[in-house]
Amino acid sequence: MKKELLYQGKAKYVYQTDKPNQLILAYKDQATAFNGKKKETIIGKGRFNNLISAKVFQFLHDKKIPSHFIELINDTEQLVEKTMIIPLEVVVRNLATGSIVKRLGFEEKTTFAPALVELYYKNDDLDDPIINDQHATLLTNTTEEEIELIKGLALKINQLLIPYFEQVGVKLVDFKLEFGRNQSGKIVLADEISPDTCRFWDVETNSSLDKDVFRQGTGDLLSVYQEILNRLGEIK
Amino acid sequence: MKKELLYQGKAKYVYQTDKPNQLILAYKDQATAFNGKKKETIIGKGRFNNLISAKVFQFLHDKKIPSHFIELINDTEQLVEKTMIIPLEVVVRNLATGSIVKRLGFEEKTTFAPALVELYYKNDDLDDPIINDQHATLLTNTTEEEIELIKGLALKINQLLIPYFEQVGVKLVDFKLEFGRNQSGKIVLADEISPDTCRFWDVETNSSLDKDVFRQGTGDLLSVYQEILNRLGEIK
Ligand SMILES: Nc1ncnc2c1ncn2[C@@H]1O[C@H](COP(=O)(O)OP(=O)(O)OP(=O)(O)O)[C@@H](O)[C@H]1O
Ligand SMILES: Nc1ncnc2c1ncn2[C@@H]1O[C@H](COP(=O)(O)OP(=O)(O)OP(=O)(O)O)[C@@H](O)[C@H]1O
Ligand SMILES: [Mg+2]
Ligand SMILES: [Mg+2]
Repeated sequence: MKKELLYQGKAKYVYQTDKPNQLILAYKDQATAFNGKKKETIIGKGRFNNLISAKVFQFLHDKKIPSHFIELINDTEQLVEKTMIIPLEVVVRNLATGSIVKRLGFEEKTTFAPALVELYYKNDDLDDPIINDQHATLLTNTTEEEIELIKGLALKINQLLIPYFEQVGVKLVDFKLEFGRNQSGKIVLADEISPDTCRFWDVETNSSLDKDVFRQGTGDLLSVYQEILNRLGEIK
Repeated sequence: MKKELLYQGKAKYVYQTDKPNQLILAYKDQATAFNGKKKETIIGKGRFNNLISAKVFQFLHDKKIPSHFIELINDTEQLVEKTMIIPLEVVVRNLATGSIVKRLGFEEKTTFAPALVELYYKNDDLDDPIINDQHATLLTNTTEEEIELIKGLALKINQLLIPYFEQVGVKLVDFKLEFGRNQSGKIVLADEISPDTCRFWDVETNSSLDKDVFRQGTGDLLSVYQEILNRLGEIK
């Protein structure tokens, strides 16, 4: 049922299936950071991303969040609805860390309540620049109302994921979402939600359980991804 | 009536007057670009900025735009209402040129209709980074409604200034505004509107009649500022 490779990114292969509306996402054993400038093969990483993302998308599906997720196929592949990705990276922040501290001078660990939503233009050549809502409508062929819908969905997903992770001792610090338009034109959550795309901090120690250990070279990626998968495994 | 120097920027001295609510802006004979990295003394420049800005603020006052402007004092000084400047640079763009072409990949001269409004955080140490509305409320002690009011005023000013300059053969390409809170807490237009803060293009030739001639070293600043002042002089 896996047909031609449509395209690939740094983390996944995207295959057509025999159903025109369905794709297979095949997760790679590759870690990248700093827009691809740091890059490493890490055997086993693809499995973690795939299993973690599938688990989170299943939870969001149960909570009625419209998404591309259909089902897990195997350890490294999942079946999803085909979408036209809207070229936005939608970032939700509960605590200040990383780029927002450097760029805007917020104190490390400032709480954002309500959560902060930022839009970035998904464009590798331009280095994913931050944009405002009006830029977003101009650059991504969306209406003002659609941008509002996307930001509203992002905040709703945040409100669902905070307690979901909290129950297993994980603080959801910030995360990046992507949305796509499905064949009927509806905007749905797409891409992945994983330690590649979220900042997870242990509630007790504030230690990173995400790709920051790879970005900063401060820990073993496989162990922390395994830890996230284990903790999510405790949730029925 | 000019009392102590309160502070100065790259373009103006700001003096207290004997009235607690009133300031004198004294324009300097200095041109700067690239956040102060290029800098030159240009005798006569202060007079042009002062006279041009006074003329534009008088026009906006007649059109009922709330502003700090009180009156022209002499060639290089004007009397204004004292405000607490809101640390935002509010940029309005009618045509794409400059940073927006580089940063977001818009084609040079793309028309923005409606005009595009961008907010930058006025902070020299951070290099005036671009921000979204939610950042603005967090960083500048303003409410969502006040940010809406500021953006609405910026668009209204644009709608007034486009035909104002058009009648003397000047295309208003983009410009930067600052707003302040006066002693009664009201948000009013402040700072200056001049060839230092606007991109003006001749309607016939598209040649720059603004600080871009200094930034790019493509022409004589005094001649083009004189040209703007001459053309505005034709307006009764
Ligand atoms: N449901 C979907 N339909 C279509 N494309 C999708 C879907 N879900 C994810 N994608 C896209 O699959 C591509 C590959 O994912 P990957 O994470 O490897 O990309 P990436 O290296 O992060 O690069 P990019 O900057 O394009 O996201 C991405 O462009 C992503 O947007
Ligand atoms: N009505 C006002 N009340 C108080 N301050 C004002 C008023 N109008 C302008 N200012 C401020 O006067 C200062 C001096 O102006 P100038 O244009 O020289 O600053 P600048 O070099 O552009 O630096 P900045 O980055 O602070 O704008 C600026 O900080 C400006 O915001
Ligand atoms: Mg990705
Ligand atoms: Mg200035």
